[in-house]
Amino acid sequence: MSGSSFGKLFKITTWGESHGLAVGVCIDGCPAGLSLYVEDIQKHLDRRKPGSGEFSTVRKEDDKVKILSGVFEDKTIGSPISVIIENEGANSNDYNNLKDIYRPGHADYTYEAKYGIRDYRGGGRASGRETAARVAAGAVALKLLSLWGIEVNAFAIEMAGAPVDKSAESLKAIKEQGDSAGGIIECVVKGVPAGIGEPVFDKLDAVLAQAVFSIGGVKGLEFGSGFSSANMLGSVCNDSFYYDETVKKRTNNSGGVLGGISDGSDIVFRAAIKPVPSIEIEQETINNKNESVKISVEGRHDVTAVPRIIPVIEAMAAIVIVDYMLQNLGAKLDYLLIDNMKGQKK
Amino acid sequence: MSGSSFGKLFKITTWGESHGLAVGVCIDGCPAGLSLYVEDIQKHLDRRKPGSGEFSTVRKEDDKVKILSGVFEDKTIGSPISVIIENEGANSNDYNNLKDIYRPGHADYTYEAKYGIRDYRGGGRASGRETAARVAAGAVALKLLSLWGIEVNAFAIEMAGAPVDKSAESLKAIKEQGDSAGGIIECVVKGVPAGIGEPVFDKLDAVLAQAVFSIGGVKGLEFGSGFSSANMLGSVCNDSFYYDETVKKRTNNSGGVLGGISDGSDIVFRAAIKPVPSIEIEQETINNKNESVKISVEGRHDVTAVPRIIPVIEAMAAIVIVDYMLQNLGAKLDYLLIDNMKGQKK
Amino acid sequence: MSGSSFGKLFKITTWGESHGLAVGVCIDGCPAGLSLYVEDIQKHLDRRKPGSGEFSTVRKEDDKVKILSGVFEDKTIGSPISVIIENEGANSNDYNNLKDIYRPGHADYTYEAKYGIRDYRGGGRASGRETAARVAAGAVALKLLSLWGIEVNAFAIEMAGAPVDKSAESLKAIKEQGDSAGGIIECVVKGVPAGIGEPVFDKLDAVLAQAVFSIGGVKGLEFGSGFSSANMLGSVCNDSFYYDETVKKRTNNSGGVLGGISDGSDIVFRAAIKPVPSIEIEQETINNKNESVKISVEGRHDVTAVPRIIPVIEAMAAIVIVDYMLQNLGAKLDYLLIDNMKGQKK
Amino acid sequence: MSGSSFGKLFKITTWGESHGLAVGVCIDGCPAGLSLYVEDIQKHLDRRKPGSGEFSTVRKEDDKVKILSGVFEDKTIGSPISVIIENEGANSNDYNNLKDIYRPGHADYTYEAKYGIRDYRGGGRASGRETAARVAAGAVALKLLSLWGIEVNAFAIEMAGAPVDKSAESLKAIKEQGDSAGGIIECVVKGVPAGIGEPVFDKLDAVLAQAVFSIGGVKGLEFGSGFSSANMLGSVCNDSFYYDETVKKRTNNSGGVLGGISDGSDIVFRAAIKPVPSIEIEQETINNKNESVKISVEGRHDVTAVPRIIPVIEAMAAIVIVDYMLQNLGAKLDYLLIDNMKGQKK
Repeated sequence: MSGSSFGKLFKITTWGESHGLAVGVCIDGCPAGLSLYVEDIQKHLDRRKPGSGEFSTVRKEDDKVKILSGVFEDKTIGSPISVIIENEGANSNDYNNLKDIYRPGHADYTYEAKYGIRDYRGGGRASGRETAARVAAGAVALKLLSLWGIEVNAFAIEMAGAPVDKSAESLKAIKEQGDSAGGIIECVVKGVPAGIGEPVFDKLDAVLAQAVFSIGGVKGLEFGSGFSSANMLGSVCNDSFYYDETVKKRTNNSGGVLGGISDGSDIVFRAAIKPVPSIEIEQETINNKNESVKISVEGRHDVTAVPRIIPVIEAMAAIVIVDYMLQNLGAKLDYLLIDNMKGQKK
Repeated sequence: MSGSSFGKLFKITTWGESHGLAVGVCIDGCPAGLSLYVEDIQKHLDRRKPGSGEFSTVRKEDDKVKILSGVFEDKTIGSPISVIIENEGANSNDYNNLKDIYRPGHADYTYEAKYGIRDYRGGGRASGRETAARVAAGAVALKLLSLWGIEVNAFAIEMAGAPVDKSAESLKAIKEQGDSAGGIIECVVKGVPAGIGEPVFDKLDAVLAQAVFSIGGVKGLEFGSGFSSANMLGSVCNDSFYYDETVKKRTNNSGGVLGGISDGSDIVFRAAIKPVPSIEIEQETINNKNESVKISVEGRHDVTAVPRIIPVIEAMAAIVIVDYMLQNLGAKLDYLLIDNMKGQKK
Repeated sequence: MSGSSFGKLFKITTWGESHGLAVGVCIDGCPAGLSLYVEDIQKHLDRRKPGSGEFSTVRKEDDKVKILSGVFEDKTIGSPISVIIENEGANSNDYNNLKDIYRPGHADYTYEAKYGIRDYRGGGRASGRETAARVAAGAVALKLLSLWGIEVNAFAIEMAGAPVDKSAESLKAIKEQGDSAGGIIECVVKGVPAGIGEPVFDKLDAVLAQAVFSIGGVKGLEFGSGFSSANMLGSVCNDSFYYDETVKKRTNNSGGVLGGISDGSDIVFRAAIKPVPSIEIEQETINNKNESVKISVEGRHDVTAVPRIIPVIEAMAAIVIVDYMLQNLGAKLDYLLIDNMKGQKK
Repeated sequence: MSGSSFGKLFKITTWGESHGLAVGVCIDGCPAGLSLYVEDIQKHLDRRKPGSGEFSTVRKEDDKVKILSGVFEDKTIGSPISVIIENEGANSNDYNNLKDIYRPGHADYTYEAKYGIRDYRGGGRASGRETAARVAAGAVALKLLSLWGIEVNAFAIEMAGAPVDKSAESLKAIKEQGDSAGGIIECVVKGVPAGIGEPVFDKLDAVLAQAVFSIGGVKGLEFGSGFSSANMLGSVCNDSFYYDETVKKRTNNSGGVLGGISDGSDIVFRAAIKPVPSIEIEQETINNKNESVKISVEGRHDVTAVPRIIPVIEAMAAIVIVDYMLQNLGAKLDYLLIDNMKGQKK
């Protein structure tokens, strides 16, 4: 229950179903005094907007952001920032024929098993639409990070089993067949100082893993040399330290995290995305009377979700990094003997 | 800060450094009335004991468990269960020569960056020794799961780049070279009913991911078809549902989780383990004065950590499943109208 | 930071400033399958509406509730329930003269000390308006409790230093003087079974105390015989148990809680409410340049907040009780061996 | 479930029953680099030791503290600090005659209602012995606070219905009658800067209230003018601000907290303590077969718990203040633009 919040100090709570009135997020714990405009958020939502690529869904999602609280005269005031995005272009009738059917690869069956009831329209809460709220929250986190010299960049490295620059033809063919494809997204976070992360359960990579696996469609994740570490010798996998103005490593097999704490190198991870489960090709499944049925999911669907997941991964990574930068403020007594512990207004 | 607790209702808090007086765990939220003997925990710790395999460390760790609270007349009473394992055979002098040096692949540097101070003896808090406490907590979780018909089994499928049954020769050779190896562990959880997991951030796979990545040495994780999903077509990756006494799937590419909720199939995941970073082969690194030094880590080290991580993965998986079984109790109002909401003692 | 969430399983997150666009709440963890209509919430907000009593503020607050998510075909679906109440009748210009001044008894100074910035319009986040969101969430909790046979009733027992039925004349006089008054509210929760509450820190009375003290204006709280317990002898204060169809107590000095767990008697507590700090009588204070100024708070203010706090106390009590009823589901293994742990959809 | 942890960043988890092997606490989130000796903790436990006053229990509790983790070379290292206190002088046989009986005023019945099982020896988990662990954790918090110029002092102001200096005769008489008494404890925290506390649910007074009500025997709590605020006029209750080197208030009816945030004045609260429920005077009650029985609690009992609760209240207050001092570090962006956000080891 109550799994819609994420973060400890910089804490987000998302809400909303695909075909309800709106989706939104409440961002609690953002430091006061950050200048924040609707446009700071809107620009990130525009990146995730459908129809922006050749292989994307047709549903018109204007995704106009409104900030309802927490910002006064264009600055955050320390109160929760409530962001709302109304659902437009949602034609619920499209889904009437699916209301009793468990689509393969979707969460229809599991939501019904869990809750005994579900909003069948467009996946309801399990829809990718929910990630709009994450992107909105991520925009605030990204703005904070930019002030601290930290950059988060995600990009596709594979789609449909081929390097991105060679995948277009395959994707076109797959789309024509009414099928779908997956891919791999890499994310690189630059500028995180050494020392961020909270052993032993809230290790930086562990919490990033929760963040990334909480995005629909993610089936695998690896940091640094990841799965190939399993084949490496220790003498190869270990990154040698050296010093050149700051502590550096000759290689980055660690992916920027050692013992769950950032090591000052780029934080690098890759996520495997499964193919979009909605396909026109006919599939075998059952309905809620446990009868066998055939299903062909018509309508507006991306051939791959990879491009739209990219800003979501950036958002989740940014949210984690901000939260752990804040958590780290109390790590060393040295820093806590400075005047700001007495930070009383004079 | 305060990253040593894990779980929401079934909540564990571990403590202890490798060469301190003891390690331990406080298990809070275990239902009352579970029969629990020291032996239930001891047997799992014995499995993770070093020296039990050819490729294991020599440090004598008897790991005698004591239960200090929460159990009365061999039953849990709902109070926190405090388990302690004294550290024996810990010769701190072994580590004096390492106190100023950042070992490659270890967390020496990152702990010092974070805390400005560290217990350098045997890795301190970052040592694998910490996982003894997890295994102790996992033993309690596994006992609960067994009552509910749920089994957790992890096993190595690859070591040193070869299938397990073919890896012995390579491991022997690697050991002789003073090097180390990694591997891949698979974990299968049988018997979890459909409906377990808490969208959208506390999805079952997301929290399992945090749990598994919080174990030292894990660099990758995948569920079901995992990274190979990225290359699949939707029509292949989607698991068709059918009905045969219960809802089933023709395949299990999902790894038992759809939309972050268990789908009634086996939960299947694989973790990539990096090579043990302590190797005899000389490596380049720096000390805490940022001077270049060479290091060769002598002494008692496993050639691979894979065998000892297996029970840790089972423990963490069990802890997550118990927690989410409990969280699910409040999911449906139907269940909450039964008499036990009025469960007053008569 | 991030102090706007409350509850563990039934978890609410409120947002909104007095003179922003809206206030709202996200209710996460409500069991699925509860029938819920806007009217269920609206009726509780109407009770807290200003202008409903002689001694109430004049600001027109229509407080029209909208449910944006989590309810489908009039039933909760297990997803977060987002409720929004737009701010109407908020004339921000009323507050321009106060923007640099720290009103005595208000949180103007402390918010500025903490955040370095504040929304000065009508108290911003510190306004009583925030409690509208609590009442909305409480309405959902109260509906759940009603299904379990639990009733929550709060009422004023004292205002302006007199029993409620004798306080009207004093209040009228105080209002005419441009002054304000406080009072005492009692809350009685009937029907909570014995066994609810989570020692040792999340004792039922301890969490109720957090809930009640989190309401603006509360300066004291006592359970059962409360402060007068301090003068009692043990032989008087101890409530004797007897049995009559169920376990009962001859007296209820405990206020329904023993050792932090409900004892099956009515849960009874009383909260002391301070006078409304906004008064017309001229007061000494300072502005944000630390200069002495005189202030007279003109405009629309209640002479006492007591009547409007009553539904807020009920709301907070209901939210706590629901949360702890749900938490208690996992307390005894006996209950967890029943079939619903295998609750798989058939 | 899992109610034995308290705090968010400075987080304690206590465990142990009165007559089990030991009680203890795990303190997670203490900043690294604090010098900490066993003696720092021992001295506070000695204050709460029984037998130190005329009206105290006879049980010999030596309460020898051991620190098992988290401290290295007399400094905290950022890892959880595990403190254990073995139970000595616990003669369980004393309690055999009570194992089936629900003592009035005790938690025997409620624990059994909740868990279906209980450790009946000396109150088990519900015993005041549990507070030894709190005092140990509080000692660490108090040491931190002392570095920041913050002092916490609690003291009795009333016992047995009389001012402390006049209560000795009454207490002696009450003891001779085999009865018991309560009292009122005041706590004053000096030196907390303005700006501490996290609205709206984690207000400083709200969390202090949870902390204090979580101590056994507390039935009432008030801040500043507390219950008498209910009778005051706003013009009297409001504390006027003025400036004299820093922002000050003419009075302190607020008790140092406005809108849930410290206002820079002393934080002042009073707790009402009920009489010790164990009395020799015969009382009516029932056993676990619901049969009426008479009970007279013989043996070693304090006539009042007030003196022993004093250090517990100080401990809990200190833990809250430390936690909220740490949480406040991220409140203002201004502070987060300083170099320590880049706090990378050079």
